[in-house]
Parts: sequence; C-alpha cells; structure tokens
Amino acid sequence: MKMAHLITNCSFSASPAVKTFSGSPGYCRNLCQLQNSKSSNLSLKSSSKRQKKSYVTCANSAVQGQTQTPLTGSQEASGHSSSKPKKVMVIGGDGYCGWATALHLSNKGYEVAIVDNLVRRLFDHQLGLDSLTPINSIQNRVRRWKSLTGKTIQLFIGDICDFEFLSEAFKSFEPDAAVHFGEQRSAPYSMIDRSRAVYTQHNNVIGTLNVLFAMKEYSEECHLVKLGTMGEYGTPNIDIEEGFITITHNGRTDTLPYPKQASSFYHLSKVHDSHNIAFTCKAWGIRATDLNQGVVYGVRTDETAMHEELSNRFDYDHVFGTALNRFCVQAAVGHPLTVYGKGGQTRGYLDIRDTVQCVELAIANPAKPGEFRVFNQFTEQFSVNELAKLVTAAGAKLGLEVQTKSVPNPRVEAEEHYYNAKHTKLIELGLVPHLLSDSLLDSLLNFAVQYKDRVDTAQIMPSVSWKKVGAKPHTVSV
Amino acid sequence: MKMAHLITNCSFSASPAVKTFSGSPGYCRNLCQLQNSKSSNLSLKSSSKRQKKSYVTCANSAVQGQTQTPLTGSQEASGHSSSKPKKVMVIGGDGYCGWATALHLSNKGYEVAIVDNLVRRLFDHQLGLDSLTPINSIQNRVRRWKSLTGKTIQLFIGDICDFEFLSEAFKSFEPDAAVHFGEQRSAPYSMIDRSRAVYTQHNNVIGTLNVLFAMKEYSEECHLVKLGTMGEYGTPNIDIEEGFITITHNGRTDTLPYPKQASSFYHLSKVHDSHNIAFTCKAWGIRATDLNQGVVYGVRTDETAMHEELSNRFDYDHVFGTALNRFCVQAAVGHPLTVYGKGGQTRGYLDIRDTVQCVELAIANPAKPGEFRVFNQFTEQFSVNELAKLVTAAGAKLGLEVQTKSVPNPRVEAEEHYYNAKHTKLIELGLVPHLLSDSLLDSLLNFAVQYKDRVDTAQIMPSVSWKKVGAKPHTVSV
Repeated sequence: MKMAHLITNCSFSASPAVKTFSGSPGYCRNLCQLQNSKSSNLSLKSSSKRQKKSYVTCANSAVQGQTQTPLTGSQEASGHSSSKPKKVMVIGGDGYCGWATALHLSNKGYEVAIVDNLVRRLFDHQLGLDSLTPINSIQNRVRRWKSLTGKTIQLFIGDICDFEFLSEAFKSFEPDAAVHFGEQRSAPYSMIDRSRAVYTQHNNVIGTLNVLFAMKEYSEECHLVKLGTMGEYGTPNIDIEEGFITITHNGRTDTLPYPKQASSFYHLSKVHDSHNIAFTCKAWGIRATDLNQGVVYGVRTDETAMHEELSNRFDYDHVFGTALNRFCVQAAVGHPLTVYGKGGQTRGYLDIRDTVQCVELAIANPAKPGEFRVFNQFTEQFSVNELAKLVTAAGAKLGLEVQTKSVPNPRVEAEEHYYNAKHTKLIELGLVPHLLSDSLLDSLLNFAVQYKDRVDTAQIMPSVSWKKVGAKPHTVSV
Repeated sequence: MKMAHLITNCSFSASPAVKTFSGSPGYCRNLCQLQNSKSSNLSLKSSSKRQKKSYVTCANSAVQGQTQTPLTGSQEASGHSSSKPKKVMVIGGDGYCGWATALHLSNKGYEVAIVDNLVRRLFDHQLGLDSLTPINSIQNRVRRWKSLTGKTIQLFIGDICDFEFLSEAFKSFEPDAAVHFGEQRSAPYSMIDRSRAVYTQHNNVIGTLNVLFAMKEYSEECHLVKLGTMGEYGTPNIDIEEGFITITHNGRTDTLPYPKQASSFYHLSKVHDSHNIAFTCKAWGIRATDLNQGVVYGVRTDETAMHEELSNRFDYDHVFGTALNRFCVQAAVGHPLTVYGKGGQTRGYLDIRDTVQCVELAIANPAKPGEFRVFNQFTEQFSVNELAKLVTAAGAKLGLEVQTKSVPNPRVEAEEHYYNAKHTKLIELGLVPHLLSDSLLDSLLNFAVQYKDRVDTAQIMPSVSWKKVGAKPHTVSV
C-alpha cells in the first residue's frame, strides 16, 4: 500500500484530530527524492524522521441554511420524505473536479464529506508544477465555506488504499452516495517512469477495490458514482456508445461491454476499474454509475467564485493541464499554442459547471441495486485544431496575436480519425449544458490574462514521451 | 509491493547465493497469521525476526545433450543458423503449468530459466492445502533434471513485483522469450477476503507491468508469451472469437478487442493484464502472445513422468483444484462429485500435455514486433455435468460407485448458457490435441486412486462464496 505509507509519513497538522492511524515507511523515500523545496501548506518531512503519525480530521457536521433538502435513496424508494439530507462522500474532494463538486453538492443541500489524501498537492511539489490560481489549504477552504454559507463539509484526510482509514470514514459518515474522484488522473503523469506507471495503476485500482469492499461491508445501499474517462474507449472506427454495445455476430445477438482501447497507463487504470465495478454490481448487488468524462475546461463555478479562498485549481502544465485551459494560458503569455502532431485528435469536452451538474444528476437519480450504469459525460466534440482556432479568434478580440505551432506528438495516438461518441443519457436526466460559447471562451482567456504573471513557461512544453517512458526513475532537470 | 516484502521476509537457504536484495517488512505479517505449522521445504520465519535477506539463486547454465537446437528469433529472421539455443524465461516455473512447461522446453533444447518466488507453496501452507502428489523442492527438481538429462535450468528465486530483482534476472539471462505463468491463478483464492482480492490484482497487474518494463528496458526483441484465461470472456450469448471481433455498427465496421466479462477478481486481473499488454505492444512495439487458456486437467507429461522427483503438483482442493482433476479425486475416495448448482456451466478444457505444446508453438512462431496476438488455448468444450458423467463411467470400469451431488453454487455465474468459443489459431500453428479419451480418463482416475491415501476430504467441499467475500480477514477453521 504505497500511498498509505506516503501519506502516513508526509503528515501535517490538522485540527481537530479525531483519530490517529499508524503507518510504516516505504514509498515516500522514492517519491520524495523528486520533491523540490517550494514552500507549501503541507509540512513535509523525510520518512525516516516522521513516522507513524497521520491525522483524520473529522469535524462534526451541522447542515444549516439549506435551500433544498435532498432525500436519501431509501426515503425516495419508500416515498417517505423527511428533512434528513442525503449524505455524499466526495473522494478526491480537494482536486479540480472534486472541489467544485463538493461545494456544489453542499450548496444544493447535500451533507458532504471530503475524503482526500491531498497527494495531488504533493505531485506539484515533486514535479515543480503549480496551479495558475493560488489555492488555499483544504482546511481553510472548508472553514471559509462554512463562514460564508453556514454549511459544514466534513474532512477525512487519508488514503483510500489504506482500508482501515477508509472503513472508519464509511462507518463514521454512512454515505448514501460516494463520488469517487480519488485517483491519479493524468495520462502524462502515468507515463513519466515505471514507478509512476505502477503507482497510478496500484493507487487507482486498489483504491477503487477498497471503496467497493467498504460499500459492501458498511453501506450496502450506497450508490457509487465513479469518474471514468472517455479515453477508455480510445478512437474506434465505429460510433462510441454509452458503456455497452449490442452486437449481432454469426446470427446471434448480445449486449456486451463496449470494447476498450485505452492509450496510457492512467486511461488503462480506469478501464480496470470499470471491469472491477461491473463485476461487483453483478456479484454483490452494488449500485454504480460510471461517468466516462470528457476533457474538462473552465475554472469557475457558482460556488468557487464566491470567495478567492474557495478558488479552484487551474492546471496549465504539460502533465496536468488539459488542452483548452493550457491553450488559454499559452495565448495569454504570448506562447504559441502547442498542437501535438497533426491536431486532428478529437475528443469530448465539457465545462466544469457541467461536471458538477452531471454528478448531481447521477446522485439524484441513483442506479438500482446491482445495476452498472455508464454515462458518457461530455457536451461537445472538438479536435485540437478546432480548439486552437477558437482560442486564436478569442485572443484577437483581446488584441492578442496568437500563434499555433505543431510540436512532435509525445503520445502514441491517431492524429486523424473517426470520432462520434453518444452522450444522451445525462441529457435525458436533465443536463442543461454550458456549451463553449464565445463569451465563455472570452472570460476563460481573460481569466488566464489576469493570472499571467504567475505563469511558468517551462511548464508548458511537453516533456513526457509515451515511447521513451523508462524503467528508471525520472530525473528532474531544473 | 506487498509480495516483495512477503518473499524478502520469508527467506530460505539456497546455494549458490549470487546476489542479495534487501527488503522491508510488511504484508507477511498479515498473510502469515493464517500460516499453519506444517513442515515444508521453505524455512519460514516471522517477519520481525528475519528481515532484509533474500537470495537469488542463479546457477550458471550449460546446455548439454540437446536433441534439437531452437534458434533465436533474430537468427530465424536473418535466415542465419547457429548452434546457440533460444533462451526462454519461464516466470512461475515452479507451478502446475509452469513446471511442466519448463521441463518440456528444456527437453526440446531451449535454454530455460525459471523465475519464481515459490509463493504458491506458501498459499498451501496458509490455507492448509496440499498437492495430491508429493512435490520436491524446486532445487531438488532442477538437480534431478540435470542428473537425468544433463540439461541445466537456471533458477531466479524472487518476486517479479520487485523490479530490481526482475531487472537483474533479465540482464543476466537475456531471454528471447518470456513465458509468464507467474500470477495468482485461482478464482476462489481471489474471493476469500479483501486482502487476497487486493493481493491478486496487485500481484498480477504490477508483476506483468514490471515484466513489460523489463522487456522494454533490457530485452526489446523478447517475445512475451502471457497466460491469460478463457474466463476473461465470460459467457456471452454470441460466439467467442480469439481476442478480437469485427463489429459492424451504424453502417461502419471495425475490428476491436473482444468484450470482456470476467467473473472473479482473479479473472479480472487477467483482463487488466490483457489491456495493459495490448497498449505496450502499440506504444512500445512489444511483441506479445496472450494465451487465453481453458481449464487444464491431467498431471503427467513426458518429462515429469521421468522420475518421481520431477512429479508435478496435482491440486484437487476447492481453491486450486480444477473441475476434472477434483472429480477424479472425489471418485477415487468415494466422495460424491460436487457439481455447483445446475452443472450446465460450459468451459474449454485441455490436457496439460497440450499446455506445454501450445506454449512451445507460440515461442517457435513468435508474434511480430508491435503485435498483440491472442490465441484461445483449449481443445474441447465440456459442461460440468458432462464431466461428471464421464468420470462416473470411468469409475464404473474400475468398480467404483460414483455418486454426483449438486451443491449450492459458491460462484455467481450462469448455470445454463450458450457457449461456443473459437480455438483454431493454435491448431493452424500445428497443435495436435490430446483429446479427453476414455483411456486418458481411466489413467487419470487410476492416478487418483494410487494416491488416495493422501486425500484430505476436508479440502474437497467449496467454502469460498462469491457473495460472502468479506472485507475482514478470512479466519481458518481447523
């Protein structure tokens, strides 16, 4: 359980500390070799000095000032209504999608707990990366949210690969739904070196297995809302369906899982998760929704915009930055937009305001016991070249002269291909998409311009090569 | 890396010890809780007492007395012939299929190295199980093979989840082909408890990732021959193809990976492996053959029959014993054949003599660089009820009155279903199957009768339930 070790060694002060778990030294030694000396909210110590201390912050919750009161699943099923709010555990709630989702759900009246080991912040330290937006500690974020809205978000700081920790979180919070963002979510990160490839698959697969076992053991009615990725499907030469495809073959017909062709160790980890979850739905009656999400852009949601201490992270670097966000930052600082290869790579995209909306829709309309449900979570398709053109046009309106440069593709992927992915199920549940309008693009670009003094251009160029990923540890060039 | 810890703690004496790796304590504590006190070839110590010592036995090889001399891949490609034999690393070469394969390949003139952490022997100790046939230590086995044939089999004793160990093995042996049997291979084992489910997926997925990275780093021309399972496909209502299926959908056509519907954490681990391997073939140009093997029966091959010290293991228990072998043992001791549920479960089966033949064919006809090739490795389909009838008839000829009893199915699986799986690719390469003839069945049953005094009937009844698998550690009832 590598990351359990990592986290139990890289401890930090939190208040109030309700429960202490002990851990043993391990992987931290390796990962910390790459750690740089930037200051951070985490008080990092070498594993040999600070062992066997980690803290679970588990403040008592008191939901106040709700605008609505979501019901629990069982209440819905029985037609019985009470004032008890539905409890949602947001695993990975300190990350880009997770933080926005946690606030959104809290704002909508759900009782929310965040489960996170904060390792995403450690990755930044180790790789010398940083969010464009300054982000506060999770403790400050949650305190600010409480002071602004009166709503409490519980915090469980720890690693879901540590089953003892996860069990305590489930037993204590008793979630009606668990939204699982708690995975290493960058394809380039998973292709840096063997150690990170292994970490990504171990962390994601074992973390999800633990969540499934915790649900079976402690919350059998709990609905798992799991973040998958559209990248699980790859780029087949036929239409992409939502999770399943009906195949007629040699005169017989069956509906089977849609074939998967993932193209990084990260994307593969999500494929593995999907198969594992589908099995537990069948074998144990777990209820699960797999949200195969497209590429997310944007940064502001209604809730994160309420106060600068609630700001979401905004990644523009070559490891964690996604295409449109990165292009906006490049345009803002006068760096050519870096198109990988021919730029015909087409994917599904969505606004982060739709991420939070989709998750809420999935929770409000839970899967049935034993059901493994797959939604393709995106609103529009774009090629990389199309995005570059849109950003160039938006830049011109701001007086920015935006260049585009093709750089050698660090990935192994088709650069020209058929792509037509279905995405109707969330629309049917009520999703009202925020499409990529000119005005949104203008505001996103303005946002990047506002923060351009914080841009580190060294973070923009690709440096992780799919073909060159080595067995040996990645060395940092500074 | 749990099993690296396990193995580095559970050390044994081997000679000559060429290289010492250090390890740290970890998982052994948990697994060893279940360990019973049976004597064994392994000198097991508690992890707290014996740390940081493990040994790699890497005897020098001198291939002698070959009847034929397989060529290396590059020699074949260039049309150049020399007397240098093709080198095959058999990962998991101490196990049921691995041992038979290692001897067979050695006998055929390949230069063979076995890489194994011997953990399969530890599982028996921990679960209180034993092979029907007495099996010798791997050291004695290899020594006996050398004395009988003059052929040396190198031994690398260690865990492939320990990349440092695996790297040394690859650099030292420089294999032309790596046959990978080195996985936890029991579905029931993976369903005992959370810890073993996690162990199975970690061990199998990370072990295979390490093999792929070692090939990329040290043996780019090496051909991976990976043991998958027919269980990856599940029981779809259409014909099962060999790895890929051509789908026409909404007027477009593509050939895609055959959809996977595995039904245990073990089977799922093989699905994960397949996806990972396919990706590395595409991204790195790895050459790989995935052998989706059916259920193996039988015990004797030409080589293991040469001397009792070369005997293969024969598992008849509810965790590791496969259907036909277990039925023969039940018939031999007068225990009713235990059919799970309705007994209509149909699978592909093969004789262990065909396992070794198939692997040899795959090695002799390697995949091309970048090719991910899938062969369905079985020769006949049977339902459980059909096998029970065959064993009943064979028993009658020996004067055994064989009863059949339906027991509640511990698994979650269809008990009546369509099943038609293709298996022509290995036939096209030259496989001459040993079909399940009456005479083979007679000899298998005779074999079980010969060893019936060693049968522990407590091992026969199913005790691992797919639905009841718990998060808490399995407790042993004695």
